[in-house]
Amino acid sequence: MNAAAERRYAILAPGSFTSRAAKTAHGVIAYARDRTVAVIDPDHAGRRVRDVVPYLDSDAPIVASLAEALPFSPTALLVGVAPAGGALPAHWRAWIDEAIAARLEIVSGLHQFLGDDAAFSGAAAHSGSRIRDLRTPPAPRLFDGSGQSVRARVILTVGSDCAVGKMTASLELTRAARERGHDARFLATGQTGIAIAGAGVPVDRTICDFTSGAVEELVLAEGDADLLFVEGQGGINHPAFAAVTLGLLYGAAPDALVLVHLASRTHIDGYGTPILPLPRLVALYEELCAAVKPACVAGIALNTHGLDDAAARVAIERASRETHLPCDDVVRNGPAGLFDAMAPRFAHKTTALR
Amino acid sequence: MNAAAERRYAILAPGSFTSRAAKTAHGVIAYARDRTVAVIDPDHAGRRVRDVVPYLDSDAPIVASLAEALPFSPTALLVGVAPAGGALPAHWRAWIDEAIAARLEIVSGLHQFLGDDAAFSGAAAHSGSRIRDLRTPPAPRLFDGSGQSVRARVILTVGSDCAVGKMTASLELTRAARERGHDARFLATGQTGIAIAGAGVPVDRTICDFTSGAVEELVLAEGDADLLFVEGQGGINHPAFAAVTLGLLYGAAPDALVLVHLASRTHIDGYGTPILPLPRLVALYEELCAAVKPACVAGIALNTHGLDDAAARVAIERASRETHLPCDDVVRNGPAGLFDAMAPRFAHKTTALR
Repeated sequence: MNAAAERRYAILAPGSFTSRAAKTAHGVIAYARDRTVAVIDPDHAGRRVRDVVPYLDSDAPIVASLAEALPFSPTALLVGVAPAGGALPAHWRAWIDEAIAARLEIVSGLHQFLGDDAAFSGAAAHSGSRIRDLRTPPAPRLFDGSGQSVRARVILTVGSDCAVGKMTASLELTRAARERGHDARFLATGQTGIAIAGAGVPVDRTICDFTSGAVEELVLAEGDADLLFVEGQGGINHPAFAAVTLGLLYGAAPDALVLVHLASRTHIDGYGTPILPLPRLVALYEELCAAVKPACVAGIALNTHGLDDAAARVAIERASRETHLPCDDVVRNGPAGLFDAMAPRFAHKTTALR
Repeated sequence: MNAAAERRYAILAPGSFTSRAAKTAHGVIAYARDRTVAVIDPDHAGRRVRDVVPYLDSDAPIVASLAEALPFSPTALLVGVAPAGGALPAHWRAWIDEAIAARLEIVSGLHQFLGDDAAFSGAAAHSGSRIRDLRTPPAPRLFDGSGQSVRARVILTVGSDCAVGKMTASLELTRAARERGHDARFLATGQTGIAIAGAGVPVDRTICDFTSGAVEELVLAEGDADLLFVEGQGGINHPAFAAVTLGLLYGAAPDALVLVHLASRTHIDGYGTPILPLPRLVALYEELCAAVKPACVAGIALNTHGLDDAAARVAIERASRETHLPCDDVVRNGPAGLFDAMAPRFAHKTTALR
């Protein structure tokens, strides 16, 4: 990351800032060094970020148009929504055009690359604005196993589903590890994580034959750290995205896993697939690792969003009892407790069976 | 498939026709309707296909150059080797150039698309030859579950590793099912299968987020059959390619699995990862299917290549005893026995848990 490159974001989320699809917007506001100076969503214009998304500690204004955002001196427009399938909603084109004309950098995590759009790239060349597609994949590289023996102990968050808090858990645990004096680093694997960290690999956009190789390359580049917290993706039983999950699991070659689950979720969102009981999910992830590079689940990061404190405590205790593992909500209760409970399991490298 | 489009292949495999990397060449010679009229490999020039690869029932000549192949009237040059990583060896460019100049169609299953190469495409435009890249992926499509309920019963071959005989098992079982009067179809998912069938989806080339969706689309298009035998890819413990395997597993949404294993192989080829004992591999595949769409392993297609008849019999009996499943070598002993033993397990659709 280059300190000189700090951005001031206007985040585009028309009609969707309070929806789950705005997780890119929420993640960047919560965790990125780049500042968010305004959010564009006519549905909530006149209010502030923390008024409509209470867990975001930001008083950035929400405005109805790009023109109203410009007085806050943004340097970039971030497409803040990550729709499934990753296509640009057609009625958003005018917003992008307007931002390009205003010479803002365009930052997008969509599958549909804005830089490949002739109209956008032509307009950007004309105005002198840049287009940054966060999901641009790295050059194809075949996994070769070299990442399995980096110095760093690699900790991967794995999930019961998409959008349950894997990125947040990885970020919070990185912070806790740093506070304990470790050289701990967060490795981003999705568009939001990349927007936050300023670098990473968009795993879901890689060609499937090269998915594991791309993740391995990411680990190799940061292999001199003490601890690498790799952002997980999807879920091993996700009918649409499990390929991403498994490619990431073998590519990262973790020494330990942290299982992330949303306490209130019983089925894979949008697909109706039942989520396995946590002990079975733990066993499944561990069995997948067993022959390739053994890794145990070190703890459960339980996302208790939507529960009151008493219900959250019950859910955390139950998950811990069922799995015989440390469990906590790293947002509600902070990451230090779970990190300390898991730390003994982060002390050693595991070895691939050869 | 269009009957009018039958090709006469010269297969390019210089220095490699007898190697495992030439599996595309071998598969096309063994199973494609398109005829192979010559193989180009200077190392074996002057001999015939069956002299150097005994299990291929073909007396096509092996020649040292394209010039020597032309008298056999090929209409297309097939790149017959599938190197890991899928790049064109630099010293092969001259062969391709020569074939384009001779107005042959160029058919390639490499990751590196020959049609995207300016020199090749320019030369092809000039000579009037065509370039067909078998690994060209379909347009991105998100998995939506609609393929889980096609009429056809879907049978997917799954493997302990790459190159153990999944495509061959699918092709042989398709043949056996047809001989029993079923409308059975083979669905190709890799470059060799696509070269054989004339259509299919190159799963390993899809963007990881869309892998399952691409396979689902393939199943939907043929969902009116009685039985669909879907060609498997990779292996669930393959450190480099398991993402492809799992995306294919969920995308195909099979009703039954056939586990394919090479009896002589103990470790994942090229990676040193030990192959799990067959009962554990069966359990792992079934556990991955359990919550998404239940599917059991109906039988074991054991590839006993390299064993004598007595050793093969022992290996088949042991695999059957260990797994309590029907087991046979569908090449050595033909597919009818294994098909008949598994057929009761192909009789019903399974249902996704909702």
